[in-house]
Parts: sequence; C-alpha cells; structure tokens
Amino acid sequence: MATSELNSETTDKRRSRRIDRADHVRADPDAIAALMGDRAVLLRMDGIDPVITDDGRLVWGTLGDVDSGSELVFLGLDGDRGCFAAVPRAHEPGDARGKAWLAAGQLGREDFATFATARSLAHWHANHRYCARCGAMTVQGKGGWQRDCTDMQCRTPVFPRTDPVVIMTVEHVTDDGERRVLLGRGLNFPEGRYSALAGFIEPGETIEQAVAREVLEEAGLKVHSVRYSSSQAWPFPSQLMLACHAKTDHPSLAIDRTELADAFWVSRGDLFAAMENLPGKSFDPPPPHAIAHRLLREWLDRPTEEKF
Amino acid sequence: MATSELNSETTDKRRSRRIDRADHVRADPDAIAALMGDRAVLLRMDGIDPVITDDGRLVWGTLGDVDSGSELVFLGLDGDRGCFAAVPRAHEPGDARGKAWLAAGQLGREDFATFATARSLAHWHANHRYCARCGAMTVQGKGGWQRDCTDMQCRTPVFPRTDPVVIMTVEHVTDDGERRVLLGRGLNFPEGRYSALAGFIEPGETIEQAVAREVLEEAGLKVHSVRYSSSQAWPFPSQLMLACHAKTDHPSLAIDRTELADAFWVSRGDLFAAMENLPGKSFDPPPPHAIAHRLLREWLDRPTEEKF
Ligand SMILES: [Zn+2]
Ligand SMILES: [Zn+2]
Repeated sequence: MATSELNSETTDKRRSRRIDRADHVRADPDAIAALMGDRAVLLRMDGIDPVITDDGRLVWGTLGDVDSGSELVFLGLDGDRGCFAAVPRAHEPGDARGKAWLAAGQLGREDFATFATARSLAHWHANHRYCARCGAMTVQGKGGWQRDCTDMQCRTPVFPRTDPVVIMTVEHVTDDGERRVLLGRGLNFPEGRYSALAGFIEPGETIEQAVAREVLEEAGLKVHSVRYSSSQAWPFPSQLMLACHAKTDHPSLAIDRTELADAFWVSRGDLFAAMENLPGKSFDPPPPHAIAHRLLREWLDRPTEEKF
Repeated sequence: MATSELNSETTDKRRSRRIDRADHVRADPDAIAALMGDRAVLLRMDGIDPVITDDGRLVWGTLGDVDSGSELVFLGLDGDRGCFAAVPRAHEPGDARGKAWLAAGQLGREDFATFATARSLAHWHANHRYCARCGAMTVQGKGGWQRDCTDMQCRTPVFPRTDPVVIMTVEHVTDDGERRVLLGRGLNFPEGRYSALAGFIEPGETIEQAVAREVLEEAGLKVHSVRYSSSQAWPFPSQLMLACHAKTDHPSLAIDRTELADAFWVSRGDLFAAMENLPGKSFDPPPPHAIAHRLLREWLDRPTEEKF
C-alpha cells in the first residue's frame, strides 16, 4: 500500500462517516463480497461497546482487524466503500450500560446513529445463534440483516428486533394555575437522578394506550391529551424511544414501589434549576443525550397558556 | 352449576369485555392460579385466528375448553374474572392473514385490542419454545408475558416482541397548487388495491429517519416535514403501526420494483372517489380498519392552505 493511501486511511479514521444503509445491497451476496475488499472499513468496538477518539468520534479500522470466523454485519455504504461491524463471539449481558452509555453523550448525531445500529445488530446476532422455533442453529443472511434456521423442515427467517418504549411527561396544573410535571426514579437510577416515566409497549397496544397504562400502573394517575413529540434509537440493547407529553386532572400519586423508587411533582422553577445545574437544585435531571432531557426541555419552554 | 349461572355465562359470551391488563398480577403465580378457577374465561380462537359472533364480537368459553397441557396466557382482568387465551401447539405460518384480516374489520375497538394482544402473544409463544441464545427449551413465565431458558448456565429471559412499522402519506403540491398524495401497491396486494407506503423501522433509526429512508428506497423521493399522526396495534403477527404525514418538493418517482408493484400520484378528487366508492373510481383504497385508511382520510380532509 502506498504511503499516501496509508495517510488518507489514517485521516479517514477520524472523520464522521455518513452511512447510506443501502438496503438494496443486502440481498445481493456478490455485491457484499465485492464490498469486503481492501477499501472496506470496520467499525472498531470493544465487544458491543464503542471505541471513541478523544474528540468524540467513532474509530474505523479494516477488515484485517477481525478474528477469522467472526460474523460481519454490513452497516451500509460511505460513498462506494462498504462499512462493516463484527459480531463478538460472546459478550456479557452485564455490560449493557457503562461505556456505551457514556459514549452516547459524546458522539455526534451521525456517529451515534451508526453506533446504535452496530450495537443493536451485534447484540442481536450474538443472542440469536439458535432458532427460537425449533432450537436448530441459525446462519446469517442478507449482510447481517436476517438470520435463517438451518433445519430443512423449519428454515424460519428471523429479523433484527427493535423494542418500542414510551417515555412521557405528565402535567398537572394546580388550582393556582401553576404547571407541574411528574418525575420519577427507577430502582437502579444513580443517586439523586430523576427522569420521565417510561415503559415497553405491549402487544395489542397503541402508543397512546401504552402511555396511559404505564402512568396508571406506576403512579396511579389517569392521563388524557397524550401527544407524541419525537423518537430516538436507544441501543441498550435495541429500543425505539417514543417520547410523549400527557396531562392529568387528578394529581394524587399511588406509586408502584416495585417499579419506581420514588416519584414527585416538580414546578417549572425547580426543573429549571435542575436542568441549568443552578445552586440549590433539588435533584439531577436526565443527561442531555437522553430523549427525556429533550422532552423536559420542551415542557419547560412551552408558555403556560399554550393549549395542546 | 345452577341454571341461572349457565344463563349468565351464555349471555356473557356475547358481550365485549373491557380487559384491564393487570400487570401487577403477572408476577404473582398464586394470584394467577387463583384466577384460573371456575369463573375464568377463555378467548376462543381457531389456532391464532379469531372466532366471532354474527354481530361481530369475540366469543368466550371456559378453561375446560383447552387441551390439557396447552400453555395459557393471562390477558388480564374483567372485573375480578381472569381472562385467558390458549397457545396452539403449532400453527402454520401461512395463516397469517385470511380470517384474522377479515375479523379485524368486524370487531369493535375493545375487542380488537383484546384479539390483537391474544394473537400476538399466542404467535410469539408458539415460535419461541427454544432459547435463541443457547438452543435449550424455554418455559413460560409471568402469566405468559415472559419465557425463560431452562439451561441453568443461560437462563436468559425473553419478552413478547412488537415490531414498529412506519406508514406514511407523501404529499406533493403542483405548480398549480394542486395537492397530490403518493399511493403504492405492494407485491401481494389484492387486484386494484392501492395504499400508503410502509416499512419496518430498523435498529438505530428514529420514526422520522425510517419514513425518509423507506420513501427514498421504494419511490426515490426525498421527503421533509415528517409529522406523526397516530398508531395502531396490527397483529400480523405483532406490529406497531406508526402513521405519519410527509411532504416532498420533487415528485419524480423511481420505483423499486422488488418492493412495489406500482406507485402513482393521486389527486384529492380521485382519492375522494375511491374512499367514497363513487362510480368511476380508479382504484380500491385500504379497508376502513387499516390505519392507512385513517391516514388518507386525514390527508383528504385537511384544507389545502393549512401548513404543518
Ligand atoms: Zn428452526
Ligand atoms: Zn438459553
């Protein structure tokens, strides 16, 4: 390899790649094989955790960095270059947060999407080496976007899993006209941290029904006026966060202590102090990269008189 | 059993039940066992297809109707009665639409939610009798809301799966100010049927990114102003439909024929004729119980001048 190419490769490692998922390539094994040549790049990961530069970027290497026999996932194209990630042979389920969680706060938008995709897929492959229908081995297909049962009678295909989760503000307006928002602490939250309530959507539910059920189960409140705000991919290991605002007319809390360590009503002033890290703040808000942070910021910034 | 009880049971079969998912009961095996007594009701299904009365209601029987050894799923409480569904020992993957699809159009809102939950869970159990991580057998837990690997080293729990899907209108306004909407035909659609485009959300994506990717992949259009409208549980076998409106400024179609049989721009007049089944209509719209129908109705009813 010429020096100039080496240099460009070195520089290349430090830039954010904008990856086209190139869905049409996945079904074409010849095209994927061709993309696995010298120009291919590999997202460097530590198991399913990210490797990040000091200035908060993902690190890319070459396919030569992969253990032989490791499964590769086709992440997409950066121009005409194939971008891949490797599936670890095994990873501890215990490493689900930690480094990856911290990394989520350092990465830019494009890099976070790339990392989220790679982490979710790698976790899914490592945990789907067998067919859940018949117990036979599975093999990778479609560039890592499918696995197929190897039993000739079964041959069931299975696709990467994404679990939808609702996360919501609940607003109550007091008789004095003061707006307050409900915050809670999960059982495993860091000391002092409060955030929006959240829970998995169940089969048979809409977003709006799931929001109402979660708030009723966890806090004993009946909500109305559920309004979708925005969504976020959250690779712990593979969630789709669906952020909503809701309202209640009856603020008496009945906290389910098997789900929440605590929950309380917070005024705009107290939330502002926490979000701005002012002296005298009474709790820690969710970190800036969590969608709960954006949701609480939206709630805070909305003028009191605005209807929705 | 006294005659009066028999009569009330008979009447009972024909009413819609409003079921409380009673999440707190699931983790309590004694409570579930107690709910499996004489007063328990069983949702009658034909495999994972519904059994429906002539007036469009679900049919309920007793736990005596179940083959011994069948797994039961706890759907929730109707007052103090336990409501259950049975997991078929095997069902053909080929029966995914057909009767269930027709049924979806006949059931009321509550019954549809109950059926959707039962169908998704029954399908999930029937296809998760083995651990995807290690290949060992799994057993049901938490009243059918979890399965656990029986291998003592693995013991991985697995939860019911819900696959988020985006479905969207795409609007283009011509130079003359005429609003048009993009409709397409899937490869397996009935003759003459057109609907909104749709596709699964992938790991690492937001709703808004998935909408943009699907429309670009399938129709070659770049969209903006993606706006969430509403959601629907769609038990074929277990999808969460996320319905959105989007806009494009450049209407030249590049149809991916591996995904779509056809796609075209439809005027408000032509969509109105199709939705109202007027003489001279040029295509069949999605059926009323599909969320695509609601989405197209919203698009049709929005005044031309309204911005979003
Ligand atoms: Zn199999
Ligand atoms: Zn296992």
